[in-house]
Amino acid sequence: MASSTVSFIIIIIITTVLLPSLSSQLSDLFPSNNPPPFLGKHSHPIKQPNHHQQYRYETRYFSQPLDHFSFLDLPRFRQRYLINTEHWVGPSRSGPIFLYCGNEGDIEWFAVNTGFVWDIAPRFGAMILFPEHRYYGDSMPFGSKEEAYRNATTLSYLTAEQALADFAVLITDLKKNLSAEGCPVVLFGGSYGGMLAAWMRLKYPHVAVGALASSAPILQFEDIVPPETFYNIVSNSFKRESSSCFDTIKNSWNALRSEGQKEDGLKQLSKTFHLCRELTSVQGLSDWLDSAYSYLAMVNYPYPSNFLMPLPGHPIREVCKRIDGSPAGSSILERIFNGVSVYYNYTGEVDCFQLDDDPHGMDGWNWQACTEMVMPMSSDQNTSMFPAYDWDYSAFREGCQRDFQVTPRPRWITTEFGGHDIEHVLKSFGSNIIFSNGLLDPWSGGSVLKNISETIIALITKEEDPDWLVEQRATEIKLIQGWIYNYSKKMKATFEI
Amino acid sequence: MASSTVSFIIIIIITTVLLPSLSSQLSDLFPSNNPPPFLGKHSHPIKQPNHHQQYRYETRYFSQPLDHFSFLDLPRFRQRYLINTEHWVGPSRSGPIFLYCGNEGDIEWFAVNTGFVWDIAPRFGAMILFPEHRYYGDSMPFGSKEEAYRNATTLSYLTAEQALADFAVLITDLKKNLSAEGCPVVLFGGSYGGMLAAWMRLKYPHVAVGALASSAPILQFEDIVPPETFYNIVSNSFKRESSSCFDTIKNSWNALRSEGQKEDGLKQLSKTFHLCRELTSVQGLSDWLDSAYSYLAMVNYPYPSNFLMPLPGHPIREVCKRIDGSPAGSSILERIFNGVSVYYNYTGEVDCFQLDDDPHGMDGWNWQACTEMVMPMSSDQNTSMFPAYDWDYSAFREGCQRDFQVTPRPRWITTEFGGHDIEHVLKSFGSNIIFSNGLLDPWSGGSVLKNISETIIALITKEEDPDWLVEQRATEIKLIQGWIYNYSKKMKATFEI
Repeated sequence: MASSTVSFIIIIIITTVLLPSLSSQLSDLFPSNNPPPFLGKHSHPIKQPNHHQQYRYETRYFSQPLDHFSFLDLPRFRQRYLINTEHWVGPSRSGPIFLYCGNEGDIEWFAVNTGFVWDIAPRFGAMILFPEHRYYGDSMPFGSKEEAYRNATTLSYLTAEQALADFAVLITDLKKNLSAEGCPVVLFGGSYGGMLAAWMRLKYPHVAVGALASSAPILQFEDIVPPETFYNIVSNSFKRESSSCFDTIKNSWNALRSEGQKEDGLKQLSKTFHLCRELTSVQGLSDWLDSAYSYLAMVNYPYPSNFLMPLPGHPIREVCKRIDGSPAGSSILERIFNGVSVYYNYTGEVDCFQLDDDPHGMDGWNWQACTEMVMPMSSDQNTSMFPAYDWDYSAFREGCQRDFQVTPRPRWITTEFGGHDIEHVLKSFGSNIIFSNGLLDPWSGGSVLKNISETIIALITKEEDPDWLVEQRATEIKLIQGWIYNYSKKMKATFEI
Repeated sequence: MASSTVSFIIIIIITTVLLPSLSSQLSDLFPSNNPPPFLGKHSHPIKQPNHHQQYRYETRYFSQPLDHFSFLDLPRFRQRYLINTEHWVGPSRSGPIFLYCGNEGDIEWFAVNTGFVWDIAPRFGAMILFPEHRYYGDSMPFGSKEEAYRNATTLSYLTAEQALADFAVLITDLKKNLSAEGCPVVLFGGSYGGMLAAWMRLKYPHVAVGALASSAPILQFEDIVPPETFYNIVSNSFKRESSSCFDTIKNSWNALRSEGQKEDGLKQLSKTFHLCRELTSVQGLSDWLDSAYSYLAMVNYPYPSNFLMPLPGHPIREVCKRIDGSPAGSSILERIFNGVSVYYNYTGEVDCFQLDDDPHGMDGWNWQACTEMVMPMSSDQNTSMFPAYDWDYSAFREGCQRDFQVTPRPRWITTEFGGHDIEHVLKSFGSNIIFSNGLLDPWSGGSVLKNISETIIALITKEEDPDWLVEQRATEIKLIQGWIYNYSKKMKATFEI
């Protein structure tokens, strides 16, 4: 079970948004221009000694150009990558290379939480590579996080295109050094890393033979999917468990605002929610609640898990039980506190809660959201349990200019990577991509949910089916085997000619 | 005839190299690190009033980010583009857009010398677009050529990836403004522009439905094709006409060197070659001869043409006639002068010849060759009529560091765009590219000469066949019609669903 829990996470989205919502009607209390961070505070290694035992790797560093697309005389930086070759059958037998596209966080955290890659590598005789994404973890330009995140100039090379080029340069060099040019590379990735894996297969088909892109919302840009999608899916996960739970949460925002406006209201709220420090506004508390709901929807597994937080099986069911089942006479906000304690304090070890200290801090994903990764998010007043909010690009842009002194390019991602009309564009173009989605995953609405061609496949699963994970993994293994088989066949044909 | 001559040029390569050769044995006289310029001095508009009459266009400008791949706060620049909409049937009828990928020169020169696009646009009801390549013609960052070419820092954004992104951003914006999102874009390009067209179809399949890439040596990198290929093809074109002509040219380099070493030798050489100014070394003269031979091989059409220079039909035959048929007693160098006069002075209007004034000048293509476009070139001592030379990357790199204070990235192009093992990589990936080549074209050796799949096609023609141009054009038109038809069919299917 441990291994399937761990491997599960690559299939279900690992990420969340800080609600950029919080409603026009509530705008006095809820300024709303937080960019949507995928991983936020979770993107650091969690101490999981067992996993570290299970997943052995060597840590190495590779010198990368800071800018692949200009010839400015810039300092290079050290990209960290983790490597395991113990099962690799080597160049003579064309041993595959499994490359996980590092995403917005410390690569060790992803490595120890991506069981699928580790589980299947031995049977493929595959090398495992986890290159870290630039500007995260230990892969900092300019020598340190402090320097790299100093300002918009130092941050300006934190883009998806540069990260993809890093992966391409690294793997090309590594293969050359190992005389492994003939070894097929298979890409893996989840969430933002899933987007990178899919894009990399499209942009660098000569580098990798295929990509397994899990929970990759590559369509969550511009108007390709309705901006309400994400919060509707989260909300439905609660409504499915209990409509009174949904209603309580939906009503809680006004209760929060009213309470905050009272004399001593913030003090009272801090007490109700067992905060370590007294609130200075309700904004931080509101973000904290949003995060809990969104993350819960992403890791709403039927069995206990420990990816983002230690959680029981069916955690949303558990949350709603506590909200609905609070003692008679409990206030809305007391119910809410009881509910979110499932997320923030399932082990019962927490005495008081620390809210996010620095919501506007120089966080890497916030920068990416404020430059390229502009994902419009709305919250529908009828179907969402979050405060109603209409996506407001101007306000978003102003927030980015204020926080980062940078102006977003909201149409760049679709210009560079496509997205509009993707079924037709890729029907006779590209091959060997699996878009893997759980339908309850809030990001699935922005992902590819239909087969595009015989080799660009969408795997959709209803997480209710107890066997879905086993079946989905079997299908994925079979498809990957097909990619490698076809590659070997082509290579053999060449040698025979 | 005029129109077919003009349109011809997009199919045959338009470009040349300044011989980076000139032999180790001759290295005292022939330092050899000129990067290979594709178009060199030809890349400016030639006065051709008739063509300007024939090809009407409007000149417009579009504001582009200087760096698409970082968020540095840089000044934008004005990209020039030429547009003709007189035959365009518009968005309501999904009128196609023909986009010529501007290459390393003034876009007006390419526009008036790309008859094929103009000829076929009316029958397709197509809009014609000629966007200029950044850092050429009138599309200068930093306000002027002087500023743009000031140093390695200002030049650092002159790369193929940035140019492709310019095209993608421009056409996306233009289509949006015209509500023409449903209009298919077809790419055209020759030589370096042909490489851009092919790469653009591969990297931006969502932007264009297909590409006609003429004389596009996308395999002329690293060790994908033998480095002797280019000069062997040029040399064979001379040998085919006359082996004594080939021999005379082959022997002339030693004669040149001997003459240059004599007292008053440079003075005598300047007289023999009717130079306006006296030589200071034989290098300039040697480069001038190299260029003539290479360009001649590229425009060795069976009929008179006026693309690079006014030339007779079968110009190499004409050159060799003059070399072989010089009066008895003529010296080798006098024969050579008589021969190259066909190229430099066919009209007989030139009194004296100006050699290239600034071979190490801040020329755009030289910069590109010194950064990304590193194309190894050797000259085989047996099969080439040029001085023997083995490609020497170290010497090349040192030349680039000296001339531009930049270090090349010789493996970057294949990392970014592929090239190794291209048949297999693209067999099940990509679609709708025509690689069009004349086999006598010296660049054909670095181009794609075999069909890769049903939709990635190589058209090879033997220029001896008098009907080859007509047939090749017919095939190209048919293929392009197929792309557009399939696109419309898919679009219609969508609307019906």
